[in-house]
Amino acid sequence: MEKNQETLRTLRHSTSHIMAQAVQKLFPSAKLAIGPATDDGFYYDFDLTDGHAFTNDDLEKIEAEMKAIVKQNLTFEKIYLDDVDAKIKEFKDEGEIYKAELLEEHKNDKPTLYLTKDKDGNILFNDLCAGPHVPNTSYIKANAFKLLKVAGAYWRGNEKNKMLQRIYATAYWSKEDLADYLHMMEEAEKRDHRKLGAKLDLFSVREEVGAGFVLWHPNLAVVREEIENYWRTEHRKRGYVIVNTPQIAKSKLWEISGHMDHYKENMFFIQKDDEKDDQYVVKPMNCPFHILIYQANRHSYRSLPLRMAELGTVYRKEKSGALGGLTRVQGFTQDDAHIFCTPEQLVDEINLIIDFVSDTMKIFEMSFEVELSTRPESYVGTIENWDLAEKGLKEAMDKRGMKYDINEGDGAFYGPKIDFKVKDAIGRTWQCATIQLDFNLPERFDIKYQDKDGQLKTPVMLHRVIFGSMERFHGILIEHYAGAFPTWLAPTQVAIVPISNDKHTDYAEKIYKKMRDAGIRASLDDRSESMNYKIRESLQDKKIPYVCVVGDKEIETNTVAVRARGIGQVGTFSVDEFISTIENEIKTRANKSFAKKD
Amino acid sequence: MEKNQETLRTLRHSTSHIMAQAVQKLFPSAKLAIGPATDDGFYYDFDLTDGHAFTNDDLEKIEAEMKAIVKQNLTFEKIYLDDVDAKIKEFKDEGEIYKAELLEEHKNDKPTLYLTKDKDGNILFNDLCAGPHVPNTSYIKANAFKLLKVAGAYWRGNEKNKMLQRIYATAYWSKEDLADYLHMMEEAEKRDHRKLGAKLDLFSVREEVGAGFVLWHPNLAVVREEIENYWRTEHRKRGYVIVNTPQIAKSKLWEISGHMDHYKENMFFIQKDDEKDDQYVVKPMNCPFHILIYQANRHSYRSLPLRMAELGTVYRKEKSGALGGLTRVQGFTQDDAHIFCTPEQLVDEINLIIDFVSDTMKIFEMSFEVELSTRPESYVGTIENWDLAEKGLKEAMDKRGMKYDINEGDGAFYGPKIDFKVKDAIGRTWQCATIQLDFNLPERFDIKYQDKDGQLKTPVMLHRVIFGSMERFHGILIEHYAGAFPTWLAPTQVAIVPISNDKHTDYAEKIYKKMRDAGIRASLDDRSESMNYKIRESLQDKKIPYVCVVGDKEIETNTVAVRARGIGQVGTFSVDEFISTIENEIKTRANKSFAKKD
Repeated sequence: MEKNQETLRTLRHSTSHIMAQAVQKLFPSAKLAIGPATDDGFYYDFDLTDGHAFTNDDLEKIEAEMKAIVKQNLTFEKIYLDDVDAKIKEFKDEGEIYKAELLEEHKNDKPTLYLTKDKDGNILFNDLCAGPHVPNTSYIKANAFKLLKVAGAYWRGNEKNKMLQRIYATAYWSKEDLADYLHMMEEAEKRDHRKLGAKLDLFSVREEVGAGFVLWHPNLAVVREEIENYWRTEHRKRGYVIVNTPQIAKSKLWEISGHMDHYKENMFFIQKDDEKDDQYVVKPMNCPFHILIYQANRHSYRSLPLRMAELGTVYRKEKSGALGGLTRVQGFTQDDAHIFCTPEQLVDEINLIIDFVSDTMKIFEMSFEVELSTRPESYVGTIENWDLAEKGLKEAMDKRGMKYDINEGDGAFYGPKIDFKVKDAIGRTWQCATIQLDFNLPERFDIKYQDKDGQLKTPVMLHRVIFGSMERFHGILIEHYAGAFPTWLAPTQVAIVPISNDKHTDYAEKIYKKMRDAGIRASLDDRSESMNYKIRESLQDKKIPYVCVVGDKEIETNTVAVRARGIGQVGTFSVDEFISTIENEIKTRANKSFAKKD
Repeated sequence: MEKNQETLRTLRHSTSHIMAQAVQKLFPSAKLAIGPATDDGFYYDFDLTDGHAFTNDDLEKIEAEMKAIVKQNLTFEKIYLDDVDAKIKEFKDEGEIYKAELLEEHKNDKPTLYLTKDKDGNILFNDLCAGPHVPNTSYIKANAFKLLKVAGAYWRGNEKNKMLQRIYATAYWSKEDLADYLHMMEEAEKRDHRKLGAKLDLFSVREEVGAGFVLWHPNLAVVREEIENYWRTEHRKRGYVIVNTPQIAKSKLWEISGHMDHYKENMFFIQKDDEKDDQYVVKPMNCPFHILIYQANRHSYRSLPLRMAELGTVYRKEKSGALGGLTRVQGFTQDDAHIFCTPEQLVDEINLIIDFVSDTMKIFEMSFEVELSTRPESYVGTIENWDLAEKGLKEAMDKRGMKYDINEGDGAFYGPKIDFKVKDAIGRTWQCATIQLDFNLPERFDIKYQDKDGQLKTPVMLHRVIFGSMERFHGILIEHYAGAFPTWLAPTQVAIVPISNDKHTDYAEKIYKKMRDAGIRASLDDRSESMNYKIRESLQDKKIPYVCVVGDKEIETNTVAVRARGIGQVGTFSVDEFISTIENEIKTRANKSFAKKD
């Protein structure tokens, strides 16, 4: 088999079987649950019935045992189960109650086992498994897999079941790939937005409020305000109108939209005082509200496209185990927009959105890749409109030489979709922007426009986000920048440090005020700490882009001695020159304007 | 008795008795419910047991009858009821079931009747009533009262009870006062923000969403964006930090804050899936969240005052009968701030807030008056802090020569309060800004700062809004401006009208783009309507501040012929001159920069 990205999951799945084999050997009380491959590795859940808890030493031992196993050049073999009931009984007799439970459920699905055999045909391990697997253990390089950590996991993810022990691990085709991954993980660990969020006083999630509901502290609210200002200005420039809609609405609205059928379990319902009362719901989406605003006026082909945008805060119920930081939340603000247009306008509109995403991601120095999901077997709308839309989406991307994958038949029943995966500074990809065509909601709400021929027709609707969720995007940004925001976003842009508080604070205050008046977020650090401590703290801990040190020399010449974050001393500048350089840096959302000076 | 503003309610109450007497005479089937005075008039609720519905003709007849009655110079006389049960029986025998019910409830409150007697001592009317009343009907001027309208009203406001007929009316000491009031009502009717909201496409409240939940259409969202931009910029300038907090939180938070005890009936609770789940609540207030953010860091006297602001959207349950437009809603955004400070900083902080309110209201050309509510009998906090606070509040206002009323003992148990009542263009007052001191929440959340002496002390907390609710303030603004927003707020600032679409649209488009690039909200009107129709529609119906008409002459000279809303032709200007004038008008939030030209 080929050793590529697509078959990596197969390798990981096989390595997971090897791990289970090693655990069975070293820990005879272990009963096996499940052991799937994941996007970046694999895991296996074990029930150590003797009550032992895996230690880090255990992980090392298991890893060593696995290395010994893979050297034996064992083969993986798939067999169909002729007598399922006999196998269930065998699992039960061995105490493999989890396997027995799974097999019971899949007894009519032509269940298969995978056997791990030595060259003499002895079966060293067998597992209920649909495969596929690599042919033999020579594919598994002893220096290209690693056991990472152990964590608790309920059987079948249900907290009413027994807590099992999950060993997380990963495997690659080569030791270089593994090293890259481990390095990225180490980097990611340092950049973890939850840790930086606390250290830089950016946000918090409090027990009294609840999991998945974020408090934006002043520092991160500044970043958000800058990004929202960009967002609003760009939308107005690009011909969008902006609206505001409430967070609470009657369930009737969600019956019309269909969300009451499809999305109920994710919606927060309001308690009724009285059976007769209307049922109210906290909004999980903005779309139905935008359609109501569309309905408030008559439309003709001349008034379309109507591009309607909102920074709309929505609430979606999630399992509390899945919640954390800014990226897995229950309340978030979507930078949402809906474009109502004629079928003829569709391709132009999609092009304009791709421009918008592209221009925006450039500002954050993020590249992106694109996936197109096309018409599934069951769909709404006309096949002409689907074809037109898919063709348009492809043409638009081809024209710009954009690389994209096609997920054939993977679109939603109501329309094809483009997903943008942005790549952060350490190479991880994140799903952010999407363009989703919708042939469904316009029908359900029966919205119309009058076409050139005088006929009333149904417009096409595009759902679109650029950042996705503001919470999530800020989480990504914190990790992307490792907390060191570029000047235009930095909560504090310049720290002013007087060399002596006694002698230089008046001057420091004067330039502080001058910077504030110029709209620069400056701070004046006149605490009784040493100058070097303050400089280090500002640049390294608080990740402030610039420190201006002022003493006798600077007062005499009306200058500031400038240190830049990540660079060091960059020279001494007149106050006016420094301010106008920073003003320009902010205005152009540029990178550092100064170079190192020895 | 004196005929002044304070005794006006007495006059109105007496006029209400006269109205009931007239109705009893003209409509013998009428049973009486209640008939109180209100802020701007009075009403009486009747049950016409013969099923007749009052018509406008009836109102005229009743008014004529009232005029006849007041001319008889009848006296009002108060008597205590010796035998309450006998009177209850009498009411019942007369079919006056509402009076009987009320008397039954108040039988132990030393109930009194008011009698209306002629000069011979005959009782022409009697009503269960606590008074006071004017001495006799000579106080009621026949040309100074007016019946206004009839509307349905449930007995005791409960929709399970019978629907009665309420006649609304008003009375003044003089016909001039009545005329002024009627003129203001007529003006108010024309300015009704619900009507203008529909006409100018500003907002809507939809049945599918529910009463009290507002959809902000693009036109009003523009106004809000401008006001929010002002708000944010001014807050940053004035040393505030800005935060964002979620709309949903556990009830635990509201237990700590005390809202679960005092405010429960106004809170939207989230339905629980499971008895064991935490109870979640939609936030009715922002304060507890801001305290949590305060708690995220240690504070010393040096880091205070901490001024924390948020455009925080809250939800408060109201009776659906009380809902309408933008001013009576269930979901609204407060321009909220909380200031945490030491007792010594309190007066300065209050002064700064008064400055802020004053500077802001000047922009909208609104004056305001102030009411101070002081320590009630039961209170929390130390009397020293209360005295300091009240003295500070008074000093601050005296210093600026601000007129204010004192509501002695009318403060909340947790602190004194300043209410700002702004006066709109037709003289109505609206409660907008407030400053509320709070000695309670800091105790409940046990927040601290380290004082100069090293001791941990409890900070004082100020709640403060400038606009109050964004929804309500925009409702007020629409009526204040009668929909004719000043240029900086106008959804469309300039409409460009080519004289001939064939010949002049290219030039119109050129200056349209130039204006858009300059950040002016311009529109190009190239519909096939007559020029005069378009000009009239823009200035009068859409209330756009400026129309630029362009034809051969303007193309030749690179100019625009300008009409200003409410003024007419103001002359012809070079395109650059016009644009820079408008840019400046927007930047300075100024009034019209042009004068009429004949």
